Amino acid sequence: MSYRKFEVDEQQLLEDIMRLRRDVRGNRFTSEPVDEKDLDRILRAALLAPSVGFSQPWRFVDIRDHETKASVAQVFKSENDKAAHLFKDAKHSQYQQLKLEGITEAPINLAVFYQHPQEAVLGQTSMPVAGQYSTICAIQNMWLMARALNIGMGWVSILDGKRVEQLLGADEHHEFVAYLCIGHVDTFYDKPELETLGWEARKAFNEVIFKESLQSKHTDHET
Amino acid sequence: MSYRKFEVDEQQLLEDIMRLRRDVRGNRFTSEPVDEKDLDRILRAALLAPSVGFSQPWRFVDIRDHETKASVAQVFKSENDKAAHLFKDAKHSQYQQLKLEGITEAPINLAVFYQHPQEAVLGQTSMPVAGQYSTICAIQNMWLMARALNIGMGWVSILDGKRVEQLLGADEHHEFVAYLCIGHVDTFYDKPELETLGWEARKAFNEVIFKESLQSKHTDHET
Repeated sequence: MSYRKFEVDEQQLLEDIMRLRRDVRGNRFTSEPVDEKDLDRILRAALLAPSVGFSQPWRFVDIRDHETKASVAQVFKSENDKAAHLFKDAKHSQYQQLKLEGITEAPINLAVFYQHPQEAVLGQTSMPVAGQYSTICAIQNMWLMARALNIGMGWVSILDGKRVEQLLGADEHHEFVAYLCIGHVDTFYDKPELETLGWEARKAFNEVIFKESLQSKHTDHET
Repeated sequence: MSYRKFEVDEQQLLEDIMRLRRDVRGNRFTSEPVDEKDLDRILRAALLAPSVGFSQPWRFVDIRDHETKASVAQVFKSENDKAAHLFKDAKHSQYQQLKLEGITEAPINLAVFYQHPQEAVLGQTSMPVAGQYSTICAIQNMWLMARALNIGMGWVSILDGKRVEQLLGADEHHEFVAYLCIGHVDTFYDKPELETLGWEARKAFNEVIFKESLQSKHTDHET
């Protein structure tokens, strides 16, 4: 049987998109409106993601309303104030200087929910969390497509999910998964900001790849 | 500031890779060995994924050992036998005819674990699950890179995570997230097998996209 075979330069392009994709915060978003066709394209990329049992359990709320954004930004602020106390000494002051979200700066906010199934889903019977995980595959597709469209996306996770669920009218079947900020940017950094700032170091290949079991490191690759 | 701008044909290529990516099971894998350079490339794509607080909490176990594969296949079988009873009538017999994994057929198995943090992680303080979600972003990168390399990948979720953790020597800090089968294929289907078989229908755009809140459907887009 025949199928589309991708070539070396196409593989390289995919790697470039992955390498140049960044988490974008409010200090980089511009006020330039996002073309609705581009948002459509980003959402359609989400719908091309794999999902357990082809259940497509993802639900997206497209938020433009300034009051809703301001309310979500309030939730962020109260969670972030609590979080700052968890980092001590030099990291405490560094934490407080970081811009960690772009809720009000980004023209488009997208809240991602997982819709719990009403009956058994193929592939989800032993690991129910495979449902939530499907929504994350969709988010990564969106992130890559946004970058290919030269549009920035940031993921805000410093939020109280219950409060976001209330704000966005979620019933008991809908679980808040992620909050995304989308907009044009003045630039994409070459590297993750937390890497550049020395907050965390990039892990070497052999720190995260193991051979045959978690007891043995993968030793036949160079970093 | 300047940054790499992707062009229309590059955006289309990314969409093509996403659209032609499939979940591959044992009935499509061939015995052709996977070049270690290609596996390296797939793993390096994982490491380009975003992670909460740049924590890179993903750990991968590269499994080639036939005994380990056979043991994991046993775990699958016992979970799958239980699962079959959850589907009734026509779906019950259809379920039993489906090939849902490629553990022993795929030359490479990769188990994905999440390593729980020992101290506070930036961005993970309100939603601890953002850690596990980071590992899923890595998996989606791998899936796309595998497809671009014309290599198949399948995700086996019908597993008892505790038993896989025991088999692969996970300590209490390592949580089993996903089990991936990787290998060359005789073909990639045009559509998801479960869509072709009528197990689940593809959802329309306006079934999953909402405007401003989950109470209101997104109506200004066509399906």
